[in-house]
Amino acid sequence: MTSILTDSSKSMRTDGNTYVGNRFVHVKNPHLDSMDEDILYHLDLGTKTHNFPAMFGDVKFVCIGGSPNRMKAFAMFIHKELRLKGSEEDIQDICAGTDRYCMYKTGPVLSISHGMGIPSISILLHELIKLLHHAKCCDVTIIRIGTSGGIGIEPGSVVITDTAVDSFFKPRFEQIILDTVVTRSTELDKELAEELLNCSKEIPDLPTLIGHTMCTYDFYEAAVVCVTLLNRLECDQINSPHEVLLEYQQRPQKLISVFIKKRLGRQNSK
Amino acid sequence: MTSILTDSSKSMRTDGNTYVGNRFVHVKNPHLDSMDEDILYHLDLGTKTHNFPAMFGDVKFVCIGGSPNRMKAFAMFIHKELRLKGSEEDIQDICAGTDRYCMYKTGPVLSISHGMGIPSISILLHELIKLLHHAKCCDVTIIRIGTSGGIGIEPGSVVITDTAVDSFFKPRFEQIILDTVVTRSTELDKELAEELLNCSKEIPDLPTLIGHTMCTYDFYEAAVVCVTLLNRLECDQINSPHEVLLEYQQRPQKLISVFIKKRLGRQNSK
Repeated sequence: MTSILTDSSKSMRTDGNTYVGNRFVHVKNPHLDSMDEDILYHLDLGTKTHNFPAMFGDVKFVCIGGSPNRMKAFAMFIHKELRLKGSEEDIQDICAGTDRYCMYKTGPVLSISHGMGIPSISILLHELIKLLHHAKCCDVTIIRIGTSGGIGIEPGSVVITDTAVDSFFKPRFEQIILDTVVTRSTELDKELAEELLNCSKEIPDLPTLIGHTMCTYDFYEAAVVCVTLLNRLECDQINSPHEVLLEYQQRPQKLISVFIKKRLGRQNSK
Repeated sequence: MTSILTDSSKSMRTDGNTYVGNRFVHVKNPHLDSMDEDILYHLDLGTKTHNFPAMFGDVKFVCIGGSPNRMKAFAMFIHKELRLKGSEEDIQDICAGTDRYCMYKTGPVLSISHGMGIPSISILLHELIKLLHHAKCCDVTIIRIGTSGGIGIEPGSVVITDTAVDSFFKPRFEQIILDTVVTRSTELDKELAEELLNCSKEIPDLPTLIGHTMCTYDFYEAAVVCVTLLNRLECDQINSPHEVLLEYQQRPQKLISVFIKKRLGRQNSK
């Protein structure tokens, strides 16, 4: 499953408090810039101990996914695909001081693991968007490349999410903030989804479609939508051989590699 | 924060579908025993590839916590404390084939990381309780030893949870199962909480209290209750020095070590 959380060419639609667009990443928190130090605890980074603009200022693509090993593999893969300078061994875990998340940077790409479930992802996004702000990044695209169960779709298909739905199949994300339910839209960037779908056509044997993804607070008590590892209408056990699962996991990576190369090519030809 | 999810001497109160009591761990799923193979995907274990009773049949205590490194350290610590045979280096990650969770076993103690957030924990508990069932374990106590923010309590205090509350301060856990909201009680075992509090009195410099713990779906948008790393009434940044935080993290481990030793002593003297 590939789920686009925000897009470089559009304002961020999923969260009223942040804007990631054709300019610097801005966080609508008036207290942020007056803080003496901002410690991004779960990333083991801080504005006093780390030079964010120097470390991350050139980031244009942030790819996030559940598994640390997979996101390390993606960093190595994109390093090769983009023919970047330097050895693969130089790509070290930037968050090695904590075991909450892993983060790898190669050229303009940041590859980060987010663990499992909405809370784990939300902690990462909270600190990541502040990181991009402190680093004065601009024109950043954030893409989730992950795995999921599927309903009525062949295992191994790559799904580009147009809308995320909750446990009730509603396109909304509800947060409880100080005893009040705050509802946010979960519609994603349609143009970016089409752009990704077009990229997929250039890759052989990569069945790709645009669809909805259901995000729930559990894994086993809910129908969960949008492909790859299994078709839940047939079975709930992940019983494909290990090699097959590994190949499946690489499919979204291939797609994103083509997408990033195209985007960079377009920027270069400007 | 120490949160007791279930107790060996009581029926499990937090989930109507499982019973962990003075007998085998039973899962109320009529299909489970008729399955040809049960793959615990996120643990990289399966009933056809692994001999569950031989690997886990003697487990009496399961300790879970967010951080993989911390749970490895706890396995080493409890190995020493219980003066178990064998070298510490023999304690290897049983789930090394996956990077979702880490699992260490030493004697009757299983130490497992659960990542961050309810969804990540729920996937683990789902597969863990099936593991205990397949392994024919009996008299199992499951304890979460973790860290959390705090409200109005000194950082470094150990909190034994009597009741978990949700974002609305209600003692309930709501799950959406096939479009229906299923509410479960989150009251924990009061006798076990008292037993743990008594254990804490034997350890010097271990400020311990019984309190509520708030479990939410995020980390930053909600008051979060029940101590250790910071007092959110004062500040929302985790700014204690690293050594202090490390010592804080070891506090619940010390408490659980005394508890397990007592329990085992009681069993031995039967």
